[in-house]
Amino acid sequence: MFDYRVKNAEEIPTPALLVYKAAVAHNIRAIGDMMGGYARLRPHIKTHKMSQIARMEMDEGIDKFKCATPKEAAMLAAIGATDVLISYHIVGANIGRVVDLKRLYPDVDLKVIADDGDAIQALSDACTSAGVSLGVMVDVNTGMDRTGALPGAPSLALAQQIAQSSGLCFVGLHVYDGHVGDFDADMRQKTAFESIERAVETRCLIEQSGIEVEKLVASGSPGFEHTQRVDGVDEVSPGTWIFWDTGYGDKLESPFEWAALILSSVISTTRADLVTLDAGSKSVAPDTPVPHFRALGLSDEIAFVRRNEEHQLLQLPEGTPRPRVGDQFYLVPRHVCTTVNLWDEVCVIDEDGMFVETWAVDARGH
Amino acid sequence: MFDYRVKNAEEIPTPALLVYKAAVAHNIRAIGDMMGGYARLRPHIKTHKMSQIARMEMDEGIDKFKCATPKEAAMLAAIGATDVLISYHIVGANIGRVVDLKRLYPDVDLKVIADDGDAIQALSDACTSAGVSLGVMVDVNTGMDRTGALPGAPSLALAQQIAQSSGLCFVGLHVYDGHVGDFDADMRQKTAFESIERAVETRCLIEQSGIEVEKLVASGSPGFEHTQRVDGVDEVSPGTWIFWDTGYGDKLESPFEWAALILSSVISTTRADLVTLDAGSKSVAPDTPVPHFRALGLSDEIAFVRRNEEHQLLQLPEGTPRPRVGDQFYLVPRHVCTTVNLWDEVCVIDEDGMFVETWAVDARGH
Repeated sequence: MFDYRVKNAEEIPTPALLVYKAAVAHNIRAIGDMMGGYARLRPHIKTHKMSQIARMEMDEGIDKFKCATPKEAAMLAAIGATDVLISYHIVGANIGRVVDLKRLYPDVDLKVIADDGDAIQALSDACTSAGVSLGVMVDVNTGMDRTGALPGAPSLALAQQIAQSSGLCFVGLHVYDGHVGDFDADMRQKTAFESIERAVETRCLIEQSGIEVEKLVASGSPGFEHTQRVDGVDEVSPGTWIFWDTGYGDKLESPFEWAALILSSVISTTRADLVTLDAGSKSVAPDTPVPHFRALGLSDEIAFVRRNEEHQLLQLPEGTPRPRVGDQFYLVPRHVCTTVNLWDEVCVIDEDGMFVETWAVDARGH
Repeated sequence: MFDYRVKNAEEIPTPALLVYKAAVAHNIRAIGDMMGGYARLRPHIKTHKMSQIARMEMDEGIDKFKCATPKEAAMLAAIGATDVLISYHIVGANIGRVVDLKRLYPDVDLKVIADDGDAIQALSDACTSAGVSLGVMVDVNTGMDRTGALPGAPSLALAQQIAQSSGLCFVGLHVYDGHVGDFDADMRQKTAFESIERAVETRCLIEQSGIEVEKLVASGSPGFEHTQRVDGVDEVSPGTWIFWDTGYGDKLESPFEWAALILSSVISTTRADLVTLDAGSKSVAPDTPVPHFRALGLSDEIAFVRRNEEHQLLQLPEGTPRPRVGDQFYLVPRHVCTTVNLWDEVCVIDEDGMFVETWAVDARGH
């Protein structure tokens, strides 16, 4: 197992989010090995939201990105990314932000997704007024029911509308298959294939209508390994792999290392069996069932007694040596994407296990 | 009811956290009315984390603050607050940060809390080396078991240690009575009194030993109304009242208005009964049981179907008119403290219901 101990950990004010450069580099190499290179990989940066991590990805040859917010897109454009997909439905005042971004970075291939005729019309009007052209992908609902047009005729109609709209360029199809979450590998593969099949059929339908489908982008971390091998799929866009977490890691086989951990200190021990850490719901995302993290070096039998904004009260199993105030623990988050989003900056741990610098989570917010 | 509609809401990119200046001003006046002025109020700023809100509080006469992190304390010192209590146990590298803060702002009456002999010793060593003096309050555990020394002899021993430590000045006692959460008013009053009684007895014990107890600071939002009337209590330190939320507001009688709401847009309607909002767990804190918010103008019968980082999927009761993509909803958070912490900035709504400017949540992070 990766050695997470930081040699100069006593210099780090806790709680702190640590990012291990060696583990990030390992994960970037590992996904390249899985996919035979980066040609079909469009990583989702909502997990890290950091220009420094995006740069590490670009330095290894990753040349296209997916993101969720205009702010993430702006961060990518600012550091020289040339192919950016905002896989989000742009409505209201966000239309102006995206159009401004395209105007500011005319050479960036900027794309958004859409599943609604009126929203496409509003986007077209804004692009036409501004004299810019924006790529648009039809978001297809292949079973998750969260967003997306139904496969087949409804998606075809939107593709036709986009293709005929001034200021817009129809790029292809986008699918997020978040319902592919079965932790049995065979079942997961089956659902992933069933899901993507609907999108590939829709792709054929649109192509038969005479509209070119440049690309089909699909899948997050649970499904991408299967989906990327399907004919008709051009790119997959997982996000969590860059840092990995126990939410996926405990259930999915993968070559990834945990690369973002919370360093936490004991701040109180009110009883012999209780320990209070300085890592509450403002430090580790509480959007999963308990436990929100795994504490390295602490038994899995600990009870998560009380969690507040800045406190996590743990009850230790009988016989566990009582930690002392000031003792540090390394916590692996269960959901790393929302955990990173809680932090303004991360403490970077270099290849020698030293805390050397901080990096901004510069695309936090929307 | 307060009118939350923003006249120029279409200019606000969503999701956005709105802060209503008129509601904030109302809440500041209301708590002053409840407490007969601000002499006994030390508001906890962890709820808002904003210098602009702290300035509104100071402009009305609030002259002392409580906070949870060194960053919050630094923000308060930077805007001219002269009395700042970090109600947190300072260990490890945070000792250096707090000492540096005292050195940078020697005229600020800066205090921390402690419940551990070794931690007090480390604080004393650092202050002595730096040639500064820091106020320290003994944190007393009156029943919550999260942090704090036991009342009576253990707390007395810590008070004596602090009083004898160079570089430290014993200030008094701190109690957080988060176990006082009963939503029955009589029961809550009873628990609040029982809890604070233990601290008041400890105060007497310390005074009898010849050590002056300058102040006893206690209570958050559920208990402060009762606790503030108890002899031997000098100050109360509620936080949530400044913005209020449905978590407390639905259960406690109070004069407060909701002052911080999320503006959210419909981004998709995949079925006639489903609506997808752009307010997921990166916009509204997920650290409460569902529902994480109440949507003004939407039935309380909505089902919270699926929540992801940037999406909230709602199922509408039969017969509800289907909202359109782009429609906006105002969401009252169930837990406003952790919700504010998700945002880098807020959209300020002025007394005329207009979005006029943004304010930074400048003490985000630790």
